Amino acid sequence: MRITVCRKGHFSAAHRLHNPNWDDEKNQRVFGDCNNPQFHGHNYEVIVKVTGELDPETGYLIDLKILRDMINEHVLDRFDHRNLYTEVEDFRNLNPTAENIAIVIWKILREKIDKKYEIKVTLYETERNFVEYEGQ
Amino acid sequence: MRITVCRKGHFSAAHRLHNPNWDDEKNQRVFGDCNNPQFHGHNYEVIVKVTGELDPETGYLIDLKILRDMINEHVLDRFDHRNLYTEVEDFRNLNPTAENIAIVIWKILREKIDKKYEIKVTLYETERNFVEYEGQ
Amino acid sequence: MRITVCRKGHFSAAHRLHNPNWDDEKNQRVFGDCNNPQFHGHNYEVIVKVTGELDPETGYLIDLKILRDMINEHVLDRFDHRNLYTEVEDFRNLNPTAENIAIVIWKILREKIDKKYEIKVTLYETERNFVEYEGQ
Amino acid sequence: MRITVCRKGHFSAAHRLHNPNWDDEKNQRVFGDCNNPQFHGHNYEVIVKVTGELDPETGYLIDLKILRDMINEHVLDRFDHRNLYTEVEDFRNLNPTAENIAIVIWKILREKIDKKYEIKVTLYETERNFVEYEGQ
Amino acid sequence: MRITVCRKGHFSAAHRLHNPNWDDEKNQRVFGDCNNPQFHGHNYEVIVKVTGELDPETGYLIDLKILRDMINEHVLDRFDHRNLYTEVEDFRNLNPTAENIAIVIWKILREKIDKKYEIKVTLYETERNFVEYEGQ
Amino acid sequence: MRITVCRKGHFSAAHRLHNPNWDDEKNQRVFGDCNNPQFHGHNYEVIVKVTGELDPETGYLIDLKILRDMINEHVLDRFDHRNLYTEVEDFRNLNPTAENIAIVIWKILREKIDKKYEIKVTLYETERNFVEYEGQ
Repeated sequence: MRITVCRKGHFSAAHRLHNPNWDDEKNQRVFGDCNNPQFHGHNYEVIVKVTGELDPETGYLIDLKILRDMINEHVLDRFDHRNLYTEVEDFRNLNPTAENIAIVIWKILREKIDKKYEIKVTLYETERNFVEYEGQ
Repeated sequence: MRITVCRKGHFSAAHRLHNPNWDDEKNQRVFGDCNNPQFHGHNYEVIVKVTGELDPETGYLIDLKILRDMINEHVLDRFDHRNLYTEVEDFRNLNPTAENIAIVIWKILREKIDKKYEIKVTLYETERNFVEYEGQ
Repeated sequence: MRITVCRKGHFSAAHRLHNPNWDDEKNQRVFGDCNNPQFHGHNYEVIVKVTGELDPETGYLIDLKILRDMINEHVLDRFDHRNLYTEVEDFRNLNPTAENIAIVIWKILREKIDKKYEIKVTLYETERNFVEYEGQ
Repeated sequence: MRITVCRKGHFSAAHRLHNPNWDDEKNQRVFGDCNNPQFHGHNYEVIVKVTGELDPETGYLIDLKILRDMINEHVLDRFDHRNLYTEVEDFRNLNPTAENIAIVIWKILREKIDKKYEIKVTLYETERNFVEYEGQ
Repeated sequence: MRITVCRKGHFSAAHRLHNPNWDDEKNQRVFGDCNNPQFHGHNYEVIVKVTGELDPETGYLIDLKILRDMINEHVLDRFDHRNLYTEVEDFRNLNPTAENIAIVIWKILREKIDKKYEIKVTLYETERNFVEYEGQ
Repeated sequence: MRITVCRKGHFSAAHRLHNPNWDDEKNQRVFGDCNNPQFHGHNYEVIVKVTGELDPETGYLIDLKILRDMINEHVLDRFDHRNLYTEVEDFRNLNPTAENIAIVIWKILREKIDKKYEIKVTLYETERNFVEYEGQ
């Protein structure tokens, strides 16, 4: 039986959007307020969806406590109360758009979660703006 | 890299459900309170999901400010504080069920959004009743 | 022991804002889109808060099932899928603003709920616009 | 036209997680607090998604009032204010994990809902932990 | 400057409502499904509001991390994944209605939080049923 | 008739907590992660509650469109996508804790909103941490 188990977590971070190959005028024009060199920030919500075969002995796909701890350790603790643009290694050469943050989270977890599972990441930047990535 | 970007918007509108090919008794039986000739209304929430290839230069799939403005101009401003049954051209010959409203929104945006993107529309009529349409 | 018990309910209704003592131009200027003669509508959420002395025998202030049924019968069934402006007696001579709807609900329940309790009504017209009334 | 219609419902129930083929020590180690023999409980939220061809005459995929009543009768009334572990026949030989509850709900509805529709069940055990099952 | 700081927490627990001084018939009549001897359960949400004078040096009323830890240690860890009716000392002689749970939480925190602050507790049993207690 | 009208708005901003009269060690000890010199950020939600006498002619306490525009212009546009610590004049000599942000918003609006109304500000820093201020 193929089932999906989902876990939601939160982190608060600062960021700005900026492409170092462009001049300031183009960065400002493309990214608008999000380019503010003094940064701004968000309460991000991340939903990790893991899909695979149910284990009939436990009735679990994956122990949600273990999934929660993996997300806490490898994602939330790494990003929470950080400045994604200046402090987080994953974004040294990568613009911290919602799209790229979702992809980075997916890649981090893809390394940690058993390959027999598929993974999908949903990242809310605000309640109204969010992205989904499943590694394709 | 294939990714999905989502934007949520809101509009408040009046409607009633009615099939002009049926008599009043059948309309009342099928649509119940929703057939009330004096109308009723909802706060609709619409989520537009756009899927395609990430632009590596911006780190965007599509600029969410542009997507937001398209949804505002072509959907929310057209429906907000309107009576879908009597005032909105799209429903002149179409019953404004949640299903049909979602399909109309999808078609409006399909005209406006670049064909390289796939579009999916989720429409909440209430927190507990909602529909999804992706153009199939 | 003085405690407050709260119950939330929902209804969907159409309305328009209009003062019959004003001409159309003034109604349009003051009420804007809300004056649309074709109506619009909302999913209203109403929270009723009842305050009084705890009954030590039951551990209840008031049985929430009874409070729920009173709200359902006297408020939700009366307003749900109705046009407040044309169909609901309470607004025959009263503009159905969020403020007046909250006051009407408070008065309806004040008649039905034992005078030993205080009542407060919160009415959400949308998630972002809401009013509170406690009978003063 | 292929569309999806969704309905959300709620029930509150007690449960514990336990595998009768394991000794107490292993049950405690695997299920932790969820194994507590005195039970604990949740407010479960269930979303049922039904997919199929739109009926052009009604503008409905399926009448949401009928779908609501089916979910109420066959799922919510069966589980609400019950102890899933001791009282609900479906879990006599099945560990009431979120995964298994979702599968049971899917199977119950698969029996009741016309085979021309596809069904997907999402079950929230808490706001942060949820599962999805679509019968594969 | 007088300000209020609020913290929300969650716990999942089983309970039943029962008055040992009444016979089964009366318990069933008054408490209905909530009297089920096999228990049921909820995801409770608790909001603790603390009011007092702002500390101008920190800009805090009270350090929210300290308030969070107090709530976690003295309330959430004590009730989470427990059966309030059979396992939690506070309800040995007290019916675990939402009202009484809120009062118990208020009394626990009143012992722990400096008397210079006022405390108010809001307890959600479900999204639609909740109570407020402020120690009067 | 005395009534309260409420409007919710959102802004995203960066900040850090820091007292310039303390050394780094004390700032780190008191404010923890919130003291991070690289900043972090939040999606703030602000609810403004305005209380006064209902205008019987309009059925309004205050026109919610006017209240919304005042909040947008004087609060949201001033703080959104800004760094409260480095860029916003109001916090030049004031630590941008949730408490102080709420007080600043209250003072800004107190200048702009007619004195016949009372004002209360609720500020959510996260869904679980929020403050209330009413000018006492």
